[in-house]
Amino acid sequence: MATGHADPRRRTRILDAALDLIADEGIARVSHRRIAARAGVPLGSMTYHFDGMDELLREAFSRFTHHIAAVFDAHLSTPADPVQAREAVADLIHTLSEGSRRDLVLTQELYTLAARRPAYRELTQAWMARSRVHLEKHFDPETARQLDALIEGLTLHRALATDPHGRALTLEAITRITGTGRRDL
Amino acid sequence: MATGHADPRRRTRILDAALDLIADEGIARVSHRRIAARAGVPLGSMTYHFDGMDELLREAFSRFTHHIAAVFDAHLSTPADPVQAREAVADLIHTLSEGSRRDLVLTQELYTLAARRPAYRELTQAWMARSRVHLEKHFDPETARQLDALIEGLTLHRALATDPHGRALTLEAITRITGTGRRDL
Repeated sequence: MATGHADPRRRTRILDAALDLIADEGIARVSHRRIAARAGVPLGSMTYHFDGMDELLREAFSRFTHHIAAVFDAHLSTPADPVQAREAVADLIHTLSEGSRRDLVLTQELYTLAARRPAYRELTQAWMARSRVHLEKHFDPETARQLDALIEGLTLHRALATDPHGRALTLEAITRITGTGRRDL
Repeated sequence: MATGHADPRRRTRILDAALDLIADEGIARVSHRRIAARAGVPLGSMTYHFDGMDELLREAFSRFTHHIAAVFDAHLSTPADPVQAREAVADLIHTLSEGSRRDLVLTQELYTLAARRPAYRELTQAWMARSRVHLEKHFDPETARQLDALIEGLTLHRALATDPHGRALTLEAITRITGTGRRDL
């Protein structure tokens, strides 16, 4: 059983520990030492697996965006027509905005990082592009781009409101933005 | 000339120093000592002006959201009809998404704080309500709510993309979401 440096599970454990630490305390509180302690690995294994903190953060957030992309995929791979697709997008928005606080915080931490350091916009750009691939199964590319922004805004506003809006408003907004952009009209 | 504890300019200076520190280093790096040093005030004046860090953060972010609300107001107080209002909203989105990195980072830091600590959602809630007041001058309340979320998403996606979308797409999305919600149809 591999338990040393080369153990791939150790690499994953470090990434998850980094994400947990960011979710709990914020990216400014992250250090090699604190991540190693949280992952239960020797400090030396950090530099074995990652070429510096930027690479570690990039891979950790990449892991996180894959997790959210899977939520997109789960909702958007099954609808058979635009009516079903709109319902699925509404479900997606309500799932994301009522989901774990960890996911919400990590999303915002990534956006904050990308806002502060433009080099990280490669990550947010790739994430947006991946979301749009799912939406483009059901809507034309221009509509998918508008809808992706709407999903972002509705999810964020529901998550950060003390009186989150209901599903009828979500569905109405989706219907309006996709009204003239159905793939199969 | 008042330069002591009671000087109201000192209070403002502390709030601005807190926002500068948050923009530069993140909320996790904020402390009474570091804010006082940045504001150039004695440490004792912090506790004179603010009843703890929560009150200070709340007032600092409240000051920041007033600043962004003024940008909303500047764009949305002049349009005379829905066509002009849509153009004004497009300008607003492009102004916000191409604006100062400080504003972008502070917005995300506030959202991260509200994501992590629900007590701060009073602030984000109040901010959203204030934005909608401006939008409700031109659109019905349900439409204003949808449009507010769209503004959020389009602004964020433009700001964090490496290939931000153009004004035509912004205007098309606004037109779609407000198409059936004009106040004066």
